Amino acid sequence: MITGKNYIGNQLSAKGATTHKTVNPKLNKENPTAFFQATSEEVNDAVELADQAFKVYRNISGKQRADFLNAIADEILALDNELTDMYMSESGLPEGRAQGERGRTVGQLRAFADLILTENWRSNTIDEAIPTRQPFPKSDIRKTSIPLGPVVVFAASNFPLAFSTAGGDTASALASGCPVIVKSHAMHSGTGELVASAIIKAAEKTGMPNGVFSNITGSGRVVGTALVKHPKVKAVGFTGSIAGGRALYNLAAEREEPIPVFAEMGSINPVVVMPNVIKNKAEETAVTYASSITLGTGQFCTNPGLLLTIAGEKTDDFVKDLAEKTVAIAPQCMLHPNIKDGFVSNGEIVTSQPGVEIVGKVEGNIEPNFAESTIAAVSGSDFLANPKMHTEVFGPFSLVVKAKDQGELVEVIDSLEGQLTGTVLAEKEDFTNLPTIADALQSKVGRIIFNGVPTGVEVCESMTHGGPYPASSDSRFTAVGLGAIKRWIRPFSYQDWPVELLPEGLK
Amino acid sequence: MITGKNYIGNQLSAKGATTHKTVNPKLNKENPTAFFQATSEEVNDAVELADQAFKVYRNISGKQRADFLNAIADEILALDNELTDMYMSESGLPEGRAQGERGRTVGQLRAFADLILTENWRSNTIDEAIPTRQPFPKSDIRKTSIPLGPVVVFAASNFPLAFSTAGGDTASALASGCPVIVKSHAMHSGTGELVASAIIKAAEKTGMPNGVFSNITGSGRVVGTALVKHPKVKAVGFTGSIAGGRALYNLAAEREEPIPVFAEMGSINPVVVMPNVIKNKAEETAVTYASSITLGTGQFCTNPGLLLTIAGEKTDDFVKDLAEKTVAIAPQCMLHPNIKDGFVSNGEIVTSQPGVEIVGKVEGNIEPNFAESTIAAVSGSDFLANPKMHTEVFGPFSLVVKAKDQGELVEVIDSLEGQLTGTVLAEKEDFTNLPTIADALQSKVGRIIFNGVPTGVEVCESMTHGGPYPASSDSRFTAVGLGAIKRWIRPFSYQDWPVELLPEGLK
Repeated sequence: MITGKNYIGNQLSAKGATTHKTVNPKLNKENPTAFFQATSEEVNDAVELADQAFKVYRNISGKQRADFLNAIADEILALDNELTDMYMSESGLPEGRAQGERGRTVGQLRAFADLILTENWRSNTIDEAIPTRQPFPKSDIRKTSIPLGPVVVFAASNFPLAFSTAGGDTASALASGCPVIVKSHAMHSGTGELVASAIIKAAEKTGMPNGVFSNITGSGRVVGTALVKHPKVKAVGFTGSIAGGRALYNLAAEREEPIPVFAEMGSINPVVVMPNVIKNKAEETAVTYASSITLGTGQFCTNPGLLLTIAGEKTDDFVKDLAEKTVAIAPQCMLHPNIKDGFVSNGEIVTSQPGVEIVGKVEGNIEPNFAESTIAAVSGSDFLANPKMHTEVFGPFSLVVKAKDQGELVEVIDSLEGQLTGTVLAEKEDFTNLPTIADALQSKVGRIIFNGVPTGVEVCESMTHGGPYPASSDSRFTAVGLGAIKRWIRPFSYQDWPVELLPEGLK
Repeated sequence: MITGKNYIGNQLSAKGATTHKTVNPKLNKENPTAFFQATSEEVNDAVELADQAFKVYRNISGKQRADFLNAIADEILALDNELTDMYMSESGLPEGRAQGERGRTVGQLRAFADLILTENWRSNTIDEAIPTRQPFPKSDIRKTSIPLGPVVVFAASNFPLAFSTAGGDTASALASGCPVIVKSHAMHSGTGELVASAIIKAAEKTGMPNGVFSNITGSGRVVGTALVKHPKVKAVGFTGSIAGGRALYNLAAEREEPIPVFAEMGSINPVVVMPNVIKNKAEETAVTYASSITLGTGQFCTNPGLLLTIAGEKTDDFVKDLAEKTVAIAPQCMLHPNIKDGFVSNGEIVTSQPGVEIVGKVEGNIEPNFAESTIAAVSGSDFLANPKMHTEVFGPFSLVVKAKDQGELVEVIDSLEGQLTGTVLAEKEDFTNLPTIADALQSKVGRIIFNGVPTGVEVCESMTHGGPYPASSDSRFTAVGLGAIKRWIRPFSYQDWPVELLPEGLK
């Protein structure tokens, strides 16, 4: 049962008068529960509790933190259909996706729990003393990693579980020893409250200090701004729009003590389709990409929004086929009316630019929050002349650029902003041209993919989900995979420290 | 022979009309050479050359970059007395220090050269494919680290060699594959030009691309501002004042594409002197600390500016003895008249606060740019009431806080801003109280030292030279030690990439 209240530490709290409701996009009507926006007093209480909890939480063993993470996973699973029903009612996403995303969320929590069972994740190093060194003796110096302090996590709209209340940011921050305050997403506050209740149950069962987790709701910018400006908050995680992420980055940079903001923002994920693929594998490529472009109604940060090709008759045929196959896939519901509005208006920005042709678009009457999948095309020279075509159209939309030759195709890559991913589809005969293309992509992206699709982000050690701005605000870190824990820690050295007083992993 | 010109890549250049001269602080008069401030055209040319050089430099082998770094070290040594004489004439520092710092500089270059001979520094990881995994096959994903792009390094005033033109920032950035543009320090532009000439010679001898290094001069903020705002600059390294570092941080955060600034700024480096040390080892501690406080005329970022004690008769005796021993050390020259002015005015800010007593201060006539070493003292309660006492007095100055008990001593630590180091001097009988003190220090510093002095920063894997703001602008990184290379790189993943096209370290 959800209450519409905030969790300030372990306590449900609703001191304010401002409320909001979530929307069922499939039914295009509001869900019943009113969610109470946290007051400034509640925000402050949550941060003060987190700061107090930090003093205890950072010093407990990795085994205890791992038990906490595993207990969160258990409590999420125990919510069973109550959670998946709520998820579907607030997102318009189907049951299979709800179950899959729950599996990913639970899997991430358990992966971070496994990671912290040993101290290896701290990258501990030991330089032993050399008392006889000339001209000065060398001290014994040992380095470890320690958590930064209370972390604020902004839940993402497009992953109500896996990048939300108990998603990758929360799991990695809790694993590192940082308390977490989640700013719940206003579009799925019910899902958020259910997951928060699971985290609080897990915290109580495993004896975690009160304040290790809070869940704050609010539909505007007031609550998020107050959280990021609070002096006792030490880092921020965010997944969402460039405008939202940049606003938080600016707030954090303007503080008396600036703090790191890890914002994973916009990306149109260029896909280079080499000529021999269009020659040899046009149809299977069109099938694969029609599916990737419409997967999850295109609402993935790694959705392929830009296809780069060399112009020609076969390319025209390929684009027509891709458009037909994309349009033939039944339209699906988007997350929320706001997301649908953005899809329509950003799509219009791109398709109204000179030289852009709509090759295929879902026509006719569809449900209000469902998406008209669209494939558009433009020449390389028109694209190069007009940065408005770089606009991200969040949803099932892809713009195909037809460059006149490989030189112009590389120019198109060079003209792009930072991206999460770059993909190359190539046959053996294309290999001689790949190093130049890979080199150009490397300057722009965090991950390159060969003969695959950018959608689907594996949670593993070698994953990089981040890239040059504005794909993320700090390309030196990843938001997905075990490396995500590095965002919340700093190096710390002990010099000549008595062995009996060193932490376990440094003895 | 120095020319007063900029190096724009391999070319000496002096297109502007604005010049400045350096000062010999011992003689208190200007040195002869006029240095030409770079014009905006020269700044732009240096960045454009660096951007072009990056395309080549990032792809050459580690062995080639190591040869370049070792050649820089060789060319610096080949400058012989010309360099150390110039160093002394621009810094007032003695010959032994000049030679020692040259040794450190050369050692750092060679240490980074050794580091990049293998690909281990990239923290490469491989997750192999699992084609049979259900419900989806797992891709082959491999992660490496790649350089960010052109880096601007601001030379530090207090280390004309080791944190300057070819210092730790430059060595680590060049090692990572980033071209470097140094903003030379206006107080030691001659030393900077000599070292720059060595780097350019080394670049030419080892076949590096033109633009891999430039050396830009200028005495105000114009040149530095232009460099940090240039869209093709991708990261900044800085060592200096809080005001200077914060100004650069703000400029970088306000860019359309924000870039990381690693600024190592202010620190007063608290030293906790436990009661049993004052009881058992008062005199030897006073000898050690009088020496540490005055070392290099106190002009180290790790200088012990704040001693924390528990009040008592023995403590009073210790402070008097420390003051006598400090004052007895012959006054030494400071780096520059501006540094001397700052030492005097910041010293007056601290000593003029209510409750602060000057226990000992060098009196009488001394040379104009020499420093009056000072030991002051204040009660814990007066210190807690007045944040002006946290002011860094850059030079041979230390404020002793006499807390009424251990609780108040921990409160004093809790009241501090971020610091580079924290030191604890303790006897076995003090050990039961150490965990509380270490815990308080851990929240505030990057390195804790037991029964030693904070001055002296070892270049090794386990060193952390950085700390919470304002000790540094990003506590997640270190400015000294091999870890410093991590400031200039980002993770990059290859998914299902053909083995023959992978870089060496990932095959």
